[in-house]
Amino acid sequence: MKMIDVKAVLDEARGQGRMALFEHEAKDLISQVGLPTTRYHLTKDKDEAISAAHGIGYPVALKIVSPQVIHKSDAGGVALGIGGDEELSASYNKIIENVKERVPGVEIRGVLVEEMAAPSVEVIVGATRDPQFGPAIMFGVGGILTEIVKDVSFRVAPIGRDEAVKMMGEIKAHRVLEGARGIPPVDKAVLADIIVKTSSLMVENPSIAAIDLNPVIVYGDSAKIVDARVILGDEGDSDEAVEPADDLDAVLDPSSVAIIGASASPDKIGHKILRNILDAGFRGPIYPVNPRGGEILGLKAYPSVLDTPEDVDAVVVVVPSRFVPGVMEECVQKGVKGAVIISSGFKDVGPEGAQLEKTVLETAARGGVRIIGPNCQGVSNPVSGFCATWPLVAGVGPVAVISQSGSIALEAPSNLVDNHVGYSKSVALGNKSDVDEADLISWLGGDEGTRVIAVYTEGTDQGRKLMKAVRVASGKPVLILKGGRTEAGRKAVLAHTGSLAGSGEVFEAAVHQSGGVCVDSLMELLDAAKAFSMLPVPAGPRLIVVTSSGGAGILSSDASEKAGLALKPLSEDIVNRLRESLPEYCVLRNPLDLTGNAFTEPGMYRDALEVVLESGEADMVLVVFGDPISGTVELLGDAVRKARDKGVPVAVNYLGGAGVQKIEVDALQRSGVPVYSTPERAITALGYMNKYRLKRSSHGDE
Amino acid sequence: MKMIDVKAVLDEARGQGRMALFEHEAKDLISQVGLPTTRYHLTKDKDEAISAAHGIGYPVALKIVSPQVIHKSDAGGVALGIGGDEELSASYNKIIENVKERVPGVEIRGVLVEEMAAPSVEVIVGATRDPQFGPAIMFGVGGILTEIVKDVSFRVAPIGRDEAVKMMGEIKAHRVLEGARGIPPVDKAVLADIIVKTSSLMVENPSIAAIDLNPVIVYGDSAKIVDARVILGDEGDSDEAVEPADDLDAVLDPSSVAIIGASASPDKIGHKILRNILDAGFRGPIYPVNPRGGEILGLKAYPSVLDTPEDVDAVVVVVPSRFVPGVMEECVQKGVKGAVIISSGFKDVGPEGAQLEKTVLETAARGGVRIIGPNCQGVSNPVSGFCATWPLVAGVGPVAVISQSGSIALEAPSNLVDNHVGYSKSVALGNKSDVDEADLISWLGGDEGTRVIAVYTEGTDQGRKLMKAVRVASGKPVLILKGGRTEAGRKAVLAHTGSLAGSGEVFEAAVHQSGGVCVDSLMELLDAAKAFSMLPVPAGPRLIVVTSSGGAGILSSDASEKAGLALKPLSEDIVNRLRESLPEYCVLRNPLDLTGNAFTEPGMYRDALEVVLESGEADMVLVVFGDPISGTVELLGDAVRKARDKGVPVAVNYLGGAGVQKIEVDALQRSGVPVYSTPERAITALGYMNKYRLKRSSHGDE
Repeated sequence: MKMIDVKAVLDEARGQGRMALFEHEAKDLISQVGLPTTRYHLTKDKDEAISAAHGIGYPVALKIVSPQVIHKSDAGGVALGIGGDEELSASYNKIIENVKERVPGVEIRGVLVEEMAAPSVEVIVGATRDPQFGPAIMFGVGGILTEIVKDVSFRVAPIGRDEAVKMMGEIKAHRVLEGARGIPPVDKAVLADIIVKTSSLMVENPSIAAIDLNPVIVYGDSAKIVDARVILGDEGDSDEAVEPADDLDAVLDPSSVAIIGASASPDKIGHKILRNILDAGFRGPIYPVNPRGGEILGLKAYPSVLDTPEDVDAVVVVVPSRFVPGVMEECVQKGVKGAVIISSGFKDVGPEGAQLEKTVLETAARGGVRIIGPNCQGVSNPVSGFCATWPLVAGVGPVAVISQSGSIALEAPSNLVDNHVGYSKSVALGNKSDVDEADLISWLGGDEGTRVIAVYTEGTDQGRKLMKAVRVASGKPVLILKGGRTEAGRKAVLAHTGSLAGSGEVFEAAVHQSGGVCVDSLMELLDAAKAFSMLPVPAGPRLIVVTSSGGAGILSSDASEKAGLALKPLSEDIVNRLRESLPEYCVLRNPLDLTGNAFTEPGMYRDALEVVLESGEADMVLVVFGDPISGTVELLGDAVRKARDKGVPVAVNYLGGAGVQKIEVDALQRSGVPVYSTPERAITALGYMNKYRLKRSSHGDE
Repeated sequence: MKMIDVKAVLDEARGQGRMALFEHEAKDLISQVGLPTTRYHLTKDKDEAISAAHGIGYPVALKIVSPQVIHKSDAGGVALGIGGDEELSASYNKIIENVKERVPGVEIRGVLVEEMAAPSVEVIVGATRDPQFGPAIMFGVGGILTEIVKDVSFRVAPIGRDEAVKMMGEIKAHRVLEGARGIPPVDKAVLADIIVKTSSLMVENPSIAAIDLNPVIVYGDSAKIVDARVILGDEGDSDEAVEPADDLDAVLDPSSVAIIGASASPDKIGHKILRNILDAGFRGPIYPVNPRGGEILGLKAYPSVLDTPEDVDAVVVVVPSRFVPGVMEECVQKGVKGAVIISSGFKDVGPEGAQLEKTVLETAARGGVRIIGPNCQGVSNPVSGFCATWPLVAGVGPVAVISQSGSIALEAPSNLVDNHVGYSKSVALGNKSDVDEADLISWLGGDEGTRVIAVYTEGTDQGRKLMKAVRVASGKPVLILKGGRTEAGRKAVLAHTGSLAGSGEVFEAAVHQSGGVCVDSLMELLDAAKAFSMLPVPAGPRLIVVTSSGGAGILSSDASEKAGLALKPLSEDIVNRLRESLPEYCVLRNPLDLTGNAFTEPGMYRDALEVVLESGEADMVLVVFGDPISGTVELLGDAVRKARDKGVPVAVNYLGGAGVQKIEVDALQRSGVPVYSTPERAITALGYMNKYRLKRSSHGDE
């Protein structure tokens, strides 16, 4: 193998205006970094090809090399499985003839003679440059089926060997790698090496847009890359991660506030926001700003922020967009530190608005003013009473909400308060001109009142910054719902905010790599936030279900498998102890079925939970009340306290209790026990806790 | 091809105690019914093998034939791709040697010489005999990946060609059949023919337990079955469908009732049930039966049902199981027509209880008494007040609930009443000793008060009866949640098809074939029941979303793709008309985003819906209120009425409205508009309506 200059090869191809390297160039390049390929030789004529074939050994493949021929098979430029000189000679003539006939004026650079690799397990290793996250690596089992079923795993590059091995475990077809009939198991270290080297190649060469190693044929402890494709792009960004900002006190927890566009008319947003800040009990000075002056909601109004008597920490802006640049000039003059811009009519309405937004941003930057919005539904901090949004949602709790959608920024707190969870902050990002998810996650990582961070986002153009923020904050669970994951959804994203929506796969991989958790729907986001805020993170995947409803038990089993939880059979030991404390009719399995008799003998729950928690066989517990059982808070009290001490989460599903159920669910949640309306919802939430545990522990290993 | 006697071949193999046919026998058998196989020849020695190879043409494969060798490859009994006489000779010796060495005392019946089929698209066609539904057919794209990813489609046999073609469309990898690079599209008629013939083979030969045709290689308009496996079983049942019963008036809507085991003690079930029947306003005579006599809840109690003064149509039995046989004797004597047996202690506690259950059943059968239960949570008919269950759930509506689980039989009505849907009947089946899901579906098909049937079941041992009932009732949507779908204890059986047919796959196929709809979770069952009860069934898959929340719009797009709905771009025509009636800031796409301004200009919903409904471009509509908008019932009133006239379902998702939202959701549902807490839930429910439409229309075609 001759040594080549990687950059020179790439530059030469780009110089010739090519979008991709020739296959032999691609193989030269990957060989250079130690990737194993089939043997190959670029030949200029038939005699050279025959002698190359002798060197390589029959059978061989022939492939045309030409800048005009992208799809070699379609052009008749490929011959496979050639067994001898005579066949080679005929095939050689044939493919030259084919290509000349099908591609008029074709410039033939030669014919590539390649080793035919013996069949074995085929995998694909690929790399792409994601618009949000930069270089990303993919692994899958090869073949048209994988391509169609999309059974692949992604990581943002660079990655190490451990992470590469994990990728292999994530694909559905991972059993293929573990040895099927007649095929030895794959040495994962060999594959991991290929993945890691491909990752480095991408990271170190910004002019490579994509790499396909497809197929890579794996033989036990060795592998051969049969075909390699290297696509060129512009010299990309250097992918430096911007540091997330955490100087957001002024917009999230200001000491004083002016409402610019405050109104005396109750229908106006500028009235509602002022009233909500007052109703929420904001303790600092509040200055309504309105050109007409006068008095609004009992407060003196000022014609301009410049007229206010003292310092103003933050402003909330609701005036029409055309006035906002002027307002921002005054804010800078006044020394304001943060602005929540509710007004729409910026990037959301097209290029002219985008220009206006740029002007506002530039002015703000001059004065160090941080901006939430514009075109957003505001910020709500129920702790300090800075509830610059509408409607007002009261109820302090440990969950912070960050949302690109105003509706979700209000729905989430409202739902959490109804469930006796409450919230610490809710921020609607709108156009995200300045402060973004990463900045907020970073700030909330240090916020005392926040223990869980729930995010709705439609994507980011600073993926690495987001990863950094999630990584730093990940002592607190960061739960992310990504809107625009499917093709149809992606189109809507472009229409909505103009933000970049990359593929959902890379986004999810990036979040998981950083120790965050991606959820699948808005309900799951809220259900998971409730679990994380009320319960300790489990130490393992083992779930025990204690139920009075056999049906709910069966649905729990179905859901556990989906959620990746382990519903293990009870040990003989625990069964013996349960037999001592429970009546004979109980079904001593997992789920542990107390039967409908638990309605008249609810004390069985207490007895069963005591044994279950003492056994050490449950990393988490789901209690199902399947009958109108009263006094559940008292029934579970001791068990829940003991479980919390042991770090075992206990969730509840309540079914079939009609009126009693409503009272009990409320009381249980008030006492800090999360209740779900179906067994599947409870288990999905517990499943996310388990995923977080896995991400966090794998994270600790790195 | 010599003609063979299918039954004789099967009998001979069974006579020799074999579990499977030899490959050549299997190919003889399938050739007999016109299935296309590769050429093959059973040979007794090497010379015969060489002359067979000449007849077939090189390359060929050799395979050992021996009753002791099940896994031929593992035993070294297979040689592939043999190119000439010399190679054949060596391979022949080698495989004989291998097998003799690895399988001591092996009895070799010969060596099979087979044509090597040229590579092309590989599929698998299989058949198994399901314990619930009898013969079932499977189709998938072949290869180890399919087996692992389980990308297969099932049908209960027999099926016709149309259904066979539909199976091909259902697999994820269906694009493989439509022509990939270098491979022509598959002629589906050829494949359908193979599927239909395999189906007939299974139906006509009860002693075949399973068939694997794997792989079947397809070449455009022809196909070759490369390997065939036929597994033998016991002569199975004749799979005659039992007729579902519909003489259930006495247990669901009795004219008079006796409570056997009625109690004066408020804690007892025998008290609660009596009180619930009274509270629900049951109009016929009610007879408490208690050996002590006296008076219970103001009614005269009788020592025995035989002592009651008039005819008794139904009894509710709550006495301990050991007394139930005696009670049933008295019921028969009295001429009772139906018994709801609440008491547990039958099949649910083991063999002794099962014997007791059998005795009760036999007695009941003598007198024509139909039984719900035993070991069940009763029956509730809120229309007549026959609420023989606990707790009492009041609220009449169009949904009938059938549940193998008592908790779900109470949870579902309770949830439906909370959502202003109500219910017509709820039946908890318990041990299902007599009346089962099929009987109830059949009866409810003719019940005036029922428009939607929601079922929770853990399976049936009379699958064909269930299919018949669903088919007959399917003018009314039958929604089924199957518990126990992901049974971990799936047996590794001899044939692939059997291992791929878990309890869930064939069940779901059977329900869909009958025009029913399978749902994935308890919440989806209730969400779908709400949609079906309040809305017309859509005429197509086209959804238009009208929203004030861009984020909810994006989540709707994501969910639509998952649910199989089509979120098509709006036509120029509708965009023009919308432009006339809506302000400029609205985003005239699908989702149609009215933006947060809809909070102050809610009339836009009315204007937008008028255009959308008149356009004829929406088969269904989702309205998202993403702000605290009041007066939604009035806003939507006209549109909802118009939509109902046109057969267009309109569902609502309400978000971010806090206190206003709670009032509006209640009012909307009271007015007959279904509201969902997240966009994804709404779209999943609409997706089930679309699936029902598809099943129903495909059903009409048959």
